Amino acid sequence: MKNLTELRKLLEDYQENNSFTRAPRELYEPANYMMNLGGKRLRPLLALVAYQMFRPSYLREALPIAHTVEIFHNFTLVHDDIMDDAPIRRGKPTVHTKWNDNTAILSGDVMLIAAYESLMTFKDEGRLSRLVRVFNRVAREVCEGQQMDMNFEQRGDVSIEDYLHMIELKTAVLLGGSLEMGAIAAHAKEKDVTNLSEFGRYIGIAFQLQDDILDTFGDADKFGKRIGGDIVQNKKTFLLLKAMKEGTGQQSKRLRELYSEMPADEEAKIEEVTHIFRDIGIHDIAAAERDKFRDKAFGHLEEVQVAEEEKGLLHEMTDLVITREH
Amino acid sequence: MKNLTELRKLLEDYQENNSFTRAPRELYEPANYMMNLGGKRLRPLLALVAYQMFRPSYLREALPIAHTVEIFHNFTLVHDDIMDDAPIRRGKPTVHTKWNDNTAILSGDVMLIAAYESLMTFKDEGRLSRLVRVFNRVAREVCEGQQMDMNFEQRGDVSIEDYLHMIELKTAVLLGGSLEMGAIAAHAKEKDVTNLSEFGRYIGIAFQLQDDILDTFGDADKFGKRIGGDIVQNKKTFLLLKAMKEGTGQQSKRLRELYSEMPADEEAKIEEVTHIFRDIGIHDIAAAERDKFRDKAFGHLEEVQVAEEEKGLLHEMTDLVITREH
Repeated sequence: MKNLTELRKLLEDYQENNSFTRAPRELYEPANYMMNLGGKRLRPLLALVAYQMFRPSYLREALPIAHTVEIFHNFTLVHDDIMDDAPIRRGKPTVHTKWNDNTAILSGDVMLIAAYESLMTFKDEGRLSRLVRVFNRVAREVCEGQQMDMNFEQRGDVSIEDYLHMIELKTAVLLGGSLEMGAIAAHAKEKDVTNLSEFGRYIGIAFQLQDDILDTFGDADKFGKRIGGDIVQNKKTFLLLKAMKEGTGQQSKRLRELYSEMPADEEAKIEEVTHIFRDIGIHDIAAAERDKFRDKAFGHLEEVQVAEEEKGLLHEMTDLVITREH
Repeated sequence: MKNLTELRKLLEDYQENNSFTRAPRELYEPANYMMNLGGKRLRPLLALVAYQMFRPSYLREALPIAHTVEIFHNFTLVHDDIMDDAPIRRGKPTVHTKWNDNTAILSGDVMLIAAYESLMTFKDEGRLSRLVRVFNRVAREVCEGQQMDMNFEQRGDVSIEDYLHMIELKTAVLLGGSLEMGAIAAHAKEKDVTNLSEFGRYIGIAFQLQDDILDTFGDADKFGKRIGGDIVQNKKTFLLLKAMKEGTGQQSKRLRELYSEMPADEEAKIEEVTHIFRDIGIHDIAAAERDKFRDKAFGHLEEVQVAEEEKGLLHEMTDLVITREH
């Protein structure tokens, strides 16, 4: 069984050997740029880990699937960055900033197609149509999640249920789908496929809640992003939605005011909002919610019928992204 | 055998029964809007016609494939209209004008995925992976063609060969691919699949050359677009590229000047350019080139091993789009 470092190396090599080499250069250069910006390679690792649980001797056969989910993820980043008007991604200019919107739209499109092309190089023809169908569903749901996220910016009545559904679609289904596709490719039993998919979906929700927590309560050095970014941008995160619900009438009223305009003094706004969050005890509420989803996730992982040590990598990956204490 | 009117009815009904009904509405409404703007339904008709040649009794089974190429075509229009900043499509506001760029990007994305979803509802599992691979190649090439088209706007050294390659990718491969997929789905022999694909590819180039001709020399009422639009927008069409090559030094120099800036007086520019084109005899040169590709196309159609009457619909469709005289 390969460990995470070995799996990552396998992935990086495969990705390098399968970079975009076709013409026109103007179309494929931005795609390679995006793929090479780095990142945790979480999704392709999940696909490999799931495959390795059931069919370790043929691990290399899963690489096209791992590559598919990584290309797809990067496609969503290219298009989301246009939509969010984000200038920086992983410390570098985003594609639409470095080139322009048109290039980012079209390179993104061809990446989405390339994700399908990679999938079709999977050798086991008998499993291909099912894999394509799962990938279709996941891809569609990610788009639906992104649309919900954009809708929420305009809406004043977002419920916590709505929010959880949005992050499930936008983030969690792709983590679940990566595991699901890896398991299907490795001939796993239906029950194991489902449990791994559910594990990924719940852990994905936990990841996003953790991200919400760290955005306000994290350590800037470790988080890698500015603390308070969500607050400055009036993002309707779990923290805000829960605070509006749990706070006193006065706290809710003040939060509504603070979130109704772009702040003149960003630091003052971050401080005041964080103060209200602390008074309400939002950190612990959010951490409890995160742990609820993490526990649900591990409940499904326990049901997977492989030796406990085979599950070790998923525990390790989870620990990398979610730490119990912070 | 169904005639074109019957095939069109079959398509329209299928499309209506398979409109986008999922949530969020904000994502799928623009997709339905685009699909319902009309158009000639050329690509899905080609898929049905090709299928009907070989397997007329099961024609309905080809509908998912026809729907796939129509959704894909509409996806390209949604994204191309953003890139070209086009306000009007088929007499109605384009998606990014009626909604906004972000909506057009994301709705387009989900349409591309929906094209794959439609394809995967094709019943014959044994042929599915080949169909997906053909569709992947076609979809990728269309993106490459669009990028080449955008590149040409910036380039001063576009050759006629470059131009023909660009329109082949941007327009013709999807026509060829629609026929190819229809024929594959209907268990056609390899030779027939190839000949139909080549027919579509060459006829697609002829269509585009005809479009270039009509844009300058057409009848505004019949053409449905403003005459001279390509000239006003400095588009490097076959007409211009050939005129630059065939004209005298003075004519080429004057064309270069006229095409180097946006005109103050559009009508005067259209008149002067058209005058030069006429002096060089560009209309007849372009018509001869168009006919060369049309003849190549029909050469391949002749090779297809079905009764001549089965090919009648393709002759009919070609006549609808290309008239010998105008």
